[in-house]
Amino acid sequence: MADSVYKIIEIVGSSSKGFDAAAKVAIERASKSLRDLRIAEVIAQDIQIEKGKVKAYRVKLKVSFKFEGGK
Amino acid sequence: MADSVYKIIEIVGSSSKGFDAAAKVAIERASKSLRDLRIAEVIAQDIQIEKGKVKAYRVKLKVSFKFEGGK
Amino acid sequence: MADSVYKIIEIVGSSSKGFDAAAKVAIERASKSLRDLRIAEVIAQDIQIEKGKVKAYRVKLKVSFKFEGGK
Amino acid sequence: MADSVYKIIEIVGSSSKGFDAAAKVAIERASKSLRDLRIAEVIAQDIQIEKGKVKAYRVKLKVSFKFEGGK
Amino acid sequence: MADSVYKIIEIVGSSSKGFDAAAKVAIERASKSLRDLRIAEVIAQDIQIEKGKVKAYRVKLKVSFKFEGGK
Amino acid sequence: MADSVYKIIEIVGSSSKGFDAAAKVAIERASKSLRDLRIAEVIAQDIQIEKGKVKAYRVKLKVSFKFEGGK
Amino acid sequence: MADSVYKIIEIVGSSSKGFDAAAKVAIERASKSLRDLRIAEVIAQDIQIEKGKVKAYRVKLKVSFKFEGGK
Amino acid sequence: MADSVYKIIEIVGSSSKGFDAAAKVAIERASKSLRDLRIAEVIAQDIQIEKGKVKAYRVKLKVSFKFEGGK
Amino acid sequence: MADSVYKIIEIVGSSSKGFDAAAKVAIERASKSLRDLRIAEVIAQDIQIEKGKVKAYRVKLKVSFKFEGGK
Amino acid sequence: MADSVYKIIEIVGSSSKGFDAAAKVAIERASKSLRDLRIAEVIAQDIQIEKGKVKAYRVKLKVSFKFEGGK
Amino acid sequence: MADSVYKIIEIVGSSSKGFDAAAKVAIERASKSLRDLRIAEVIAQDIQIEKGKVKAYRVKLKVSFKFEGGK
Amino acid sequence: MADSVYKIIEIVGSSSKGFDAAAKVAIERASKSLRDLRIAEVIAQDIQIEKGKVKAYRVKLKVSFKFEGGK
Repeated sequence: MADSVYKIIEIVGSSSKGFDAAAKVAIERASKSLRDLRIAEVIAQDIQIEKGKVKAYRVKLKVSFKFEGGK
Repeated sequence: MADSVYKIIEIVGSSSKGFDAAAKVAIERASKSLRDLRIAEVIAQDIQIEKGKVKAYRVKLKVSFKFEGGK
Repeated sequence: MADSVYKIIEIVGSSSKGFDAAAKVAIERASKSLRDLRIAEVIAQDIQIEKGKVKAYRVKLKVSFKFEGGK
Repeated sequence: MADSVYKIIEIVGSSSKGFDAAAKVAIERASKSLRDLRIAEVIAQDIQIEKGKVKAYRVKLKVSFKFEGGK
Repeated sequence: MADSVYKIIEIVGSSSKGFDAAAKVAIERASKSLRDLRIAEVIAQDIQIEKGKVKAYRVKLKVSFKFEGGK
Repeated sequence: MADSVYKIIEIVGSSSKGFDAAAKVAIERASKSLRDLRIAEVIAQDIQIEKGKVKAYRVKLKVSFKFEGGK
Repeated sequence: MADSVYKIIEIVGSSSKGFDAAAKVAIERASKSLRDLRIAEVIAQDIQIEKGKVKAYRVKLKVSFKFEGGK
Repeated sequence: MADSVYKIIEIVGSSSKGFDAAAKVAIERASKSLRDLRIAEVIAQDIQIEKGKVKAYRVKLKVSFKFEGGK
Repeated sequence: MADSVYKIIEIVGSSSKGFDAAAKVAIERASKSLRDLRIAEVIAQDIQIEKGKVKAYRVKLKVSFKFEGGK
Repeated sequence: MADSVYKIIEIVGSSSKGFDAAAKVAIERASKSLRDLRIAEVIAQDIQIEKGKVKAYRVKLKVSFKFEGGK
Repeated sequence: MADSVYKIIEIVGSSSKGFDAAAKVAIERASKSLRDLRIAEVIAQDIQIEKGKVKAYRVKLKVSFKFEGGK
Repeated sequence: MADSVYKIIEIVGSSSKGFDAAAKVAIERASKSLRDLRIAEVIAQDIQIEKGKVKAYRVKLKVSFKFEGGK
């Protein structure tokens, strides 16, 4: 089997529904321009607050995909 | 624009429904006595177990708000 | 009160429903063979992706229980 | 069972007797003004030196207690 | 010499001049309501950006002071 | 000299006397069922509080021993 | 309000004037090709030395911006 | 697809040949008693020294495998 | 001397030969599309296992290069 | 007041009596050859085990002192 | 090209002017007794406070230089 | 058995052959001026790149040895 190289980027997804949805939003958005996504690692979670209420749940992810050049 | 100073406290919210709800409970409780909350950062999550079942999801948060003195 | 000793193991739960469910699955599975589970600490979360969609949410947990020998 | 919210503060205790005593001093002092303390987590330990001798052992603790408002 | 107990809080200072000034602003503000501040440890630094320019430098600090009760 | 493999487990010892005793309790309990213990690394320390007093000092340890199969 | 996705990249700025200037240089350079930068988090700082003198202050930043595809 | 649960253990492999060999030794030894190993994460590396020479390279690994009960 | 700005990306190289080769593969692949690579920092290492044998050594690297725009 | 420069070294103290004594031993030994020691920060603690019993408590410290040249 | 070995030490610089100056003071002081300094990595920053005002900015650095023996 | 004190220093070894060789070079160089080296802990690994090729593998180590005074 040939050697392979993957690239990793960081993205942040945001949703008013919860952490699961915030991660899903980010992954589906990233899948539109990146091929062959495999794993998304959660590296941070936070919550935006407005007038004492939760406004949005946010999840920061590291996503890996096949390296095909570019920057 | 004037310089500003924020204070950060740590709180733990707990809920039997899940991590999203546990964070929400903590933020809404904190909003009753603290003004101008902006961001709550998740710094730890754990689960209390009783008789082999999930009893409560808990989320530890760092919340920042305008510093108006006090300790 | 007598001194006590606990043991801690790491497990990973996986579910297509979300992070709460993934943690629940792991805890209920571990409860079948380990007695007196008390706390499960979340130490990592990631997401398996297939064809650009979330396939499974995964939660890595540290669970503590009474030490009764064995390895 | 009702949802609950806890607050966490950091304190530093200091004693010439050792780390155990330094932690004890901090906890008993904090108990005078805070209700329902449950767990104190050690997050750092250091030693003050004077003329080549140990002057004081110091323990930094995170203590959690019921959130009843205030800042 | 008597045992002593210190408390630690987190504050964030912000200034358009730079990191040194941001820390100074936070410390002088905190000194108005807290007695006997000794050390402020830098635990994070970030920069707010507006229209591609630096808007404010921010410094997050842990400040320790004599524990005199309160929450 | 032959290659060798060690296994590492996490245990928590608890004692009302102090951190040294808590570690000792855990090591002597683990030695009853595990052979050839060599090093126990302290990875966390906390204190259980009851009615404003220290109830128990706890030490979390990583202990390594010869790997002889099992899980 | 619609869900949103941000991307995060790491850049290093360098200046002989100091850490504030090094961060400013990196942010203004990044702003030329990236739209809607909001926050730059400092994740490391170092200093290049030449003949016993400071040659350049360097700041490593994580910058977040609206995700519009690309890699 | 059914939900699944994995367990993670820490092992240390040792070899005079180098880090690659030390990891290989540990994995092949663990495979004799654990089924369905998938990933081994390197969490620490060190070197034993004797009379000023490298005696053994050691690699500490976290290995995950299907949870089938036991402790 | 003029101020300069570098960009940092994360890549993962994989090889059946060992960690050195896995890093080499990733660096030579990245060099095809990125100019002026200087340093690659190892941030994680793991091993893929198949039928109880090492299938591939993997190295995650942070590589820095001159920032020339793009995303 | 003049600018000042301190140097920091790491030492490990060992004692069969406990962690407090192990730290004390290291500090008093270091004081014989280093002037003006001020603070010793605990950065790791472990325990050597022999025949299932605690053989020695060890404490790793970072000690700072006035920089007067040398290496 | 020949293999080379570097040594790394930790130093703390202090200045009332700011963090840049504190780092500069430490580096220039270290350069008097150490040859061929190349990089100084910032590993901690804090501020000494006196009567509610900044007294000194302090920067802790790791500096590397050619290893020529000694301790 | 008498109490003992060890000192720890950081060194960096460099080799074009690989990480194992880089660590070996550093340890054998350090052994020429330091007595009774026991353990070298790997704390960082990086790679120098020149014209798109690996120029040198580098390993940063913490080495401990008997404390016999000096700085």
